Amino acid sequence: MPARFTALVDSLPATVPFVGPEAQERVRGRPFRARIGANENGFGASPMAVAAMAAAAAEAWKYCDPESHDLRHALAAAHGVTPAHVMVGEGIDGLLGLVVRLVVEPGTPVVTSLGAYPTFAYHVAGFGGRLVTVPYHDDREDPEALLAAVRRTGAPLVYFANPDNPMGTWWSAEAVAELVAALPTHTLLLLDEAYAEFAPAGVSPRLAPDDPRVLRLRTFSKAHGLAGIRVGFAVGAPAVIAAFDKIRNHFGVNRIGQAGALAALGDGDHLVRVRAAVSAARSRIAALARANGLLPLPSATNFVTVDCGRDGAHARRVLDALLARDVFVRMPGVAPLDRCIRVGCGRPEELDVLEQEWPAALSAATAAASG
Amino acid sequence: MPARFTALVDSLPATVPFVGPEAQERVRGRPFRARIGANENGFGASPMAVAAMAAAAAEAWKYCDPESHDLRHALAAAHGVTPAHVMVGEGIDGLLGLVVRLVVEPGTPVVTSLGAYPTFAYHVAGFGGRLVTVPYHDDREDPEALLAAVRRTGAPLVYFANPDNPMGTWWSAEAVAELVAALPTHTLLLLDEAYAEFAPAGVSPRLAPDDPRVLRLRTFSKAHGLAGIRVGFAVGAPAVIAAFDKIRNHFGVNRIGQAGALAALGDGDHLVRVRAAVSAARSRIAALARANGLLPLPSATNFVTVDCGRDGAHARRVLDALLARDVFVRMPGVAPLDRCIRVGCGRPEELDVLEQEWPAALSAATAAASG
Repeated sequence: MPARFTALVDSLPATVPFVGPEAQERVRGRPFRARIGANENGFGASPMAVAAMAAAAAEAWKYCDPESHDLRHALAAAHGVTPAHVMVGEGIDGLLGLVVRLVVEPGTPVVTSLGAYPTFAYHVAGFGGRLVTVPYHDDREDPEALLAAVRRTGAPLVYFANPDNPMGTWWSAEAVAELVAALPTHTLLLLDEAYAEFAPAGVSPRLAPDDPRVLRLRTFSKAHGLAGIRVGFAVGAPAVIAAFDKIRNHFGVNRIGQAGALAALGDGDHLVRVRAAVSAARSRIAALARANGLLPLPSATNFVTVDCGRDGAHARRVLDALLARDVFVRMPGVAPLDRCIRVGCGRPEELDVLEQEWPAALSAATAAASG
Repeated sequence: MPARFTALVDSLPATVPFVGPEAQERVRGRPFRARIGANENGFGASPMAVAAMAAAAAEAWKYCDPESHDLRHALAAAHGVTPAHVMVGEGIDGLLGLVVRLVVEPGTPVVTSLGAYPTFAYHVAGFGGRLVTVPYHDDREDPEALLAAVRRTGAPLVYFANPDNPMGTWWSAEAVAELVAALPTHTLLLLDEAYAEFAPAGVSPRLAPDDPRVLRLRTFSKAHGLAGIRVGFAVGAPAVIAAFDKIRNHFGVNRIGQAGALAALGDGDHLVRVRAAVSAARSRIAALARANGLLPLPSATNFVTVDCGRDGAHARRVLDALLARDVFVRMPGVAPLDRCIRVGCGRPEELDVLEQEWPAALSAATAAASG
């Protein structure tokens, strides 16, 4: 290849943040029996959302509304802000890419936790930012350390997920509010609340809606069971929200996705049912982990991160043994988090497969280590 | 606002490439009776595609396949290339943004035609590129002038639409192949073929699939009647296609969209019906234009660009008068193209509205000018 691309692009690795389960199934030559690795919501979307999407399919010859007007207004009402406080985007992933582009130039320091969401780090690298990481503390992100790193580096951007992925742990709303209050004037906090609907009350803080220092990120991929439609949204100060319009793909949010998200937002009963089902699955996974001699971490999400009790190599062997037994799970990428595997709150029949296969997977992992 | 964003972002205007018809309807307080301004396909998608999307809606709790495996393989077969030659993205708009990001740094010269697709210019501005424009010649893009501008500026990126939007005109496959053959080694041609399915035979060239100098852009938004699902694709050399993986939003192409596009690709009969309906509509719009004393340009697309016979101010008055009469149309943005309006190949009932309202709109435009 001639030097066709920018020096930055040429410097980027060809690796991708995640390999999808479909790709793994194609390599394996057979489907997983338990799809519980991508923090999807197997309890599914609201039937009202499914019906709205089927109806919207017949209108798919029309471009989507680039302003996501109806959805944005409904979200504003639901969150007690104005529509000017809300931006709808192609999932949180898409919004993360846009925010990084708004803020990051080559060399810009950006703060995150070591082992936090890889797609954020991918976007920071993609715009040439300098990733500054702080370690997790007791399997939780460490707000004080994040703040200290922001102060030390002058970073204009910091990422914090609450509840956290991949560990499932969380901080109180008060702790988050304290972090926001202590931010320098020029720093933007990305508060990723993808899992907020699964958390106990008192985890999502009330924040001043016009504070330009914080952007709250939410999604329809998790509690609403609509990962496939790629609809996320940001809530923040209108001056920050308005900046998206300068750079985003205006017609990027699929028409059927907008319809599905709007209908899902209106079905509070379904959300209640999903929360209950996820809570039950969480308890069952924790009990199964303990029955297998492993330590489940507390979780405020739709997955349970399970400490396999040894190092990353051991957890990787457990993971591989589960994959070989048709159980799709994932694990954190870096030490010391990678002593764990991450098990999603699947449907009962999927957890039946997990229950059946877990003991043999652990035996196989142990045998492989000593073999 | 504090200086929260990059200097580049701060320098960008808050304008957006297009205002959607929904936004205009909200301002007007009533719907359009003829939605023929956005080059949509009112004859709609294949019933097979609609059914596939409705079925996929029930599976929307799963993330989409980030590799768009099935769709990409089907597209490769249809285009006589390998899957490594194909990248699926969030519409041509999304792919344009990614290509610009791959190639353009602040100050990079980029060549296009003055008045060509605004979203491309939007992305070039968004990455700080220096847009170098050449005029249309006889209402067609001018390959020789584009090439001369590439040579003069050393531009690594040049945009050429065939057939063209907003004028509807086209060049032969031979002319395009000559343009490609004459490109400098390091220059990438974006060959936007969004309207290719509406063109006569012999317009889309055969190109060497491994030539890294040309990227062909196609979409499901036009002939396939799926503008709302945001699925486009690029066909090019594997080394160029692979670069997308370094920067794209991997999970950005909606699961339902992938299913709809795949089914649409399999329904050749529907495409034949759409082509015939568009051809008939094209003839009718041209006849209506002539009956109203206006000059329709020849078209190889699903719209007819109509010369209103005077300057841009007059065409704008005609457009406004049509909008006031519930006919959604658009017009080119710069002189001398802006002496025209662009009329989409709508359904018969929409063209009935156009037929009914066009004479009064022209009278109103003339009266407004002399008033």
